[in-house]
Amino acid sequence: MDQWSERQRPVCLEKRFEFSTYGDTRDFLDRLGHLSEAQDRFPDLSFGKTYVNVTLRPASDDVDAALTADDHTFAQHIDELID
Amino acid sequence: MDQWSERQRPVCLEKRFEFSTYGDTRDFLDRLGHLSEAQDRFPDLSFGKTYVNVTLRPASDDVDAALTADDHTFAQHIDELID
Repeated sequence: MDQWSERQRPVCLEKRFEFSTYGDTRDFLDRLGHLSEAQDRFPDLSFGKTYVNVTLRPASDDVDAALTADDHTFAQHIDELID
Repeated sequence: MDQWSERQRPVCLEKRFEFSTYGDTRDFLDRLGHLSEAQDRFPDLSFGKTYVNVTLRPASDDVDAALTADDHTFAQHIDELID
Protein backbone atom coordinates (compact mmCIF):
# COMPACT_ATOMS: atom_id res chain seq x y z
CA MET A 1 0.00 0.00 0.00
CA ASP A 2 1.23 3.56 -0.80
CA GLN A 3 2.68 5.63 2.03
CA TRP A 4 1.47 8.93 3.43
CA SER A 5 3.43 11.98 2.29
CA GLU A 6 4.55 14.43 4.96
CA ARG A 7 4.19 18.06 3.82
CA GLN A 8 5.34 21.44 5.17
CA ARG A 9 3.55 24.81 4.92
CA PRO A 10 1.13 23.73 6.20
CA VAL A 11 2.44 20.74 8.11
CA CYS A 12 0.23 17.75 7.27
CA LEU A 13 0.05 14.15 6.10
CA GLU A 14 -1.41 13.59 2.66
CA LYS A 15 -2.44 10.54 0.72
CA ARG A 16 -4.49 9.77 -2.40
CA PHE A 17 -6.78 6.72 -2.40
CA GLU A 18 -8.05 5.47 -5.77
CA PHE A 19 -11.06 3.23 -6.33
CA SER A 20 -12.47 1.29 -9.27
CA THR A 21 -16.10 2.41 -8.83
CA TYR A 22 -18.04 5.34 -7.36
CA GLY A 23 -19.68 2.85 -5.00
CA ASP A 24 -16.26 1.92 -3.57
CA THR A 25 -15.40 5.61 -3.18
CA ARG A 26 -18.65 6.22 -1.23
CA ASP A 27 -18.11 3.14 0.97
CA PHE A 28 -14.66 4.42 1.93
CA LEU A 29 -16.04 7.92 2.62
CA ASP A 30 -18.80 6.47 4.79
CA ARG A 31 -16.32 4.39 6.81
CA LEU A 32 -14.02 7.39 7.16
CA GLY A 33 -17.02 9.46 8.28
CA HIS A 34 -17.74 7.01 11.09
CA LEU A 35 -14.05 6.95 12.09
CA SER A 36 -14.00 10.77 12.10
CA GLU A 37 -17.04 10.95 14.36
CA ALA A 38 -15.70 8.22 16.66
CA GLN A 39 -12.35 9.99 17.10
CA ASP A 40 -13.65 13.56 16.64
CA ARG A 41 -11.04 14.15 13.95
CA PHE A 42 -12.15 15.54 10.60
CA PRO A 43 -9.45 15.48 7.93
CA ASP A 44 -9.91 17.68 4.86
CA LEU A 45 -11.06 15.45 2.03
CA SER A 46 -11.36 16.11 -1.68
CA PHE A 47 -12.90 13.48 -3.91
CA GLY A 48 -14.33 12.79 -7.33
CA LYS A 49 -15.88 9.70 -8.84
CA THR A 50 -13.01 7.30 -8.13
CA TYR A 51 -10.43 9.08 -5.89
CA VAL A 52 -10.19 10.56 -2.41
CA ASN A 53 -7.36 12.88 -1.35
CA VAL A 54 -6.95 12.95 2.44
CA THR A 55 -5.17 15.87 4.14
CA LEU A 56 -4.49 15.30 7.84
CA ARG A 57 -3.36 18.35 9.79
CA PRO A 58 -1.85 17.98 13.29
CA ALA A 59 -4.50 17.36 15.94
CA SER A 60 -3.28 20.45 17.82
CA ASP A 61 -4.70 23.72 16.47
CA ASP A 62 -1.44 25.64 17.13
CA VAL A 63 -0.33 27.33 13.93
CA ASP A 64 3.16 25.81 14.19
CA ALA A 65 1.99 22.41 15.55
CA ALA A 66 4.13 19.43 14.51
CA LEU A 67 2.86 16.00 13.55
CA THR A 68 2.76 13.57 16.47
CA ALA A 69 2.55 9.79 16.89
CA ASP A 70 -1.22 10.20 17.32
CA ASP A 71 -1.47 11.75 13.86
CA HIS A 72 0.44 8.84 12.32
CA THR A 73 -1.75 6.38 14.26
CA PHE A 74 -4.90 8.06 12.91
CA ALA A 75 -3.44 7.82 9.40
CA GLN A 76 -2.91 4.11 9.99
CA HIS A 77 -6.55 3.74 11.05
CA ILE A 78 -7.56 5.34 7.75
CA ASP A 79 -5.39 2.82 5.87
CA GLU A 80 -7.14 0.02 7.75
CA LEU A 81 -10.49 1.13 6.26
CA ILE A 82 -9.34 -0.34 2.95
CA ASP A 83 -10.34 -4.02 2.66
CA MET B 1 -28.54 31.98 -1.09
CA ASP B 2 -24.99 32.65 -2.41
CA GLN B 3 -24.36 32.42 -6.14
CA TRP B 4 -22.06 30.08 -8.02
CA SER B 5 -18.77 31.63 -9.15
CA GLU B 6 -17.75 31.07 -12.75
CA ARG B 7 -14.00 30.43 -13.07
CA GLN B 8 -11.57 30.22 -15.99
CA ARG B 9 -8.47 28.02 -16.28
CA PRO B 10 -10.05 25.55 -15.85
CA VAL B 11 -13.54 26.63 -16.81
CA CYS B 12 -15.90 25.60 -14.00
CA LEU B 13 -18.61 26.66 -11.58
CA GLU B 14 -17.62 26.81 -7.92
CA LYS B 15 -19.52 27.27 -4.71
CA ARG B 16 -18.87 26.81 -0.98
CA PHE B 17 -21.64 25.43 1.23
CA GLU B 18 -21.29 25.85 4.99
CA PHE B 19 -23.12 23.86 7.65
CA SER B 20 -23.57 24.14 11.40
CA THR B 21 -22.85 20.48 12.21
CA TYR B 22 -20.91 17.54 10.73
CA GLY B 23 -24.24 15.69 10.52
CA ASP B 24 -25.63 18.40 8.21
CA THR B 25 -22.48 18.25 6.09
CA ARG B 26 -22.86 14.45 5.71
CA ASP B 27 -26.59 14.74 4.88
CA PHE B 28 -25.78 17.18 2.09
CA LEU B 29 -22.99 14.92 0.77
CA ASP B 30 -25.32 11.90 0.83
CA ARG B 31 -28.02 13.79 -1.09
CA LEU B 32 -25.44 15.07 -3.57
CA GLY B 33 -24.13 11.51 -3.94
CA HIS B 34 -27.60 10.31 -4.95
CA LEU B 35 -28.02 13.23 -7.36
CA SER B 36 -24.60 12.46 -8.89
CA GLU B 37 -25.51 8.81 -9.43
CA ALA B 38 -28.95 9.70 -10.82
CA GLN B 39 -27.48 12.16 -13.35
CA ASP B 40 -24.12 10.40 -13.79
CA ARG B 41 -22.34 13.68 -12.99
CA PHE B 42 -19.62 13.67 -10.36
CA PRO B 43 -18.44 17.16 -9.37
CA ASP B 44 -15.10 17.45 -7.54
CA LEU B 45 -15.88 17.99 -3.89
CA SER B 46 -13.65 19.02 -1.02
CA PHE B 47 -15.03 19.08 2.49
CA GLY B 48 -14.17 19.27 6.17
CA LYS B 49 -16.30 19.13 9.28
CA THR B 50 -18.72 21.94 8.37
CA TYR B 51 -18.05 23.00 4.72
CA VAL B 52 -18.27 21.54 1.23
CA ASN B 53 -16.60 23.17 -1.79
CA VAL B 54 -18.21 22.05 -5.05
CA THR B 55 -16.30 22.38 -8.35
CA LEU B 56 -18.43 21.67 -11.41
CA ARG B 57 -16.55 21.28 -14.68
CA PRO B 58 -18.40 21.35 -18.03
CA ALA B 59 -20.19 18.07 -18.74
CA SER B 60 -18.23 17.76 -22.01
CA ASP B 61 -14.71 16.32 -21.55
CA ASP B 62 -13.23 18.57 -24.26
CA VAL B 63 -10.27 20.46 -22.82
CA ASP B 64 -11.67 23.80 -23.99
CA ALA B 65 -15.35 22.96 -23.26
CA ALA B 66 -17.51 25.92 -22.21
CA LEU B 67 -20.19 25.88 -19.54
CA THR B 68 -23.66 25.17 -20.92
CA ALA B 69 -27.24 25.65 -19.72
CA ASP B 70 -27.13 22.01 -18.54
CA ASP B 71 -24.22 22.80 -16.23
CA HIS B 72 -26.12 25.73 -14.70
CA THR B 73 -29.22 23.53 -14.34
CA PHE B 74 -27.18 20.86 -12.52
CA ALA B 75 -25.81 23.59 -10.23
CA GLN B 76 -29.39 24.64 -9.49
CA HIS B 77 -30.27 21.04 -8.60
CA ILE B 78 -27.39 21.08 -6.11
CA ASP B 79 -28.78 24.29 -4.55
CA GLU B 80 -32.16 22.58 -4.21
CA LEU B 81 -30.56 19.93 -1.96
CA ILE B 82 -30.40 22.57 0.77
CA ASP B 83 -33.62 22.59 2.88
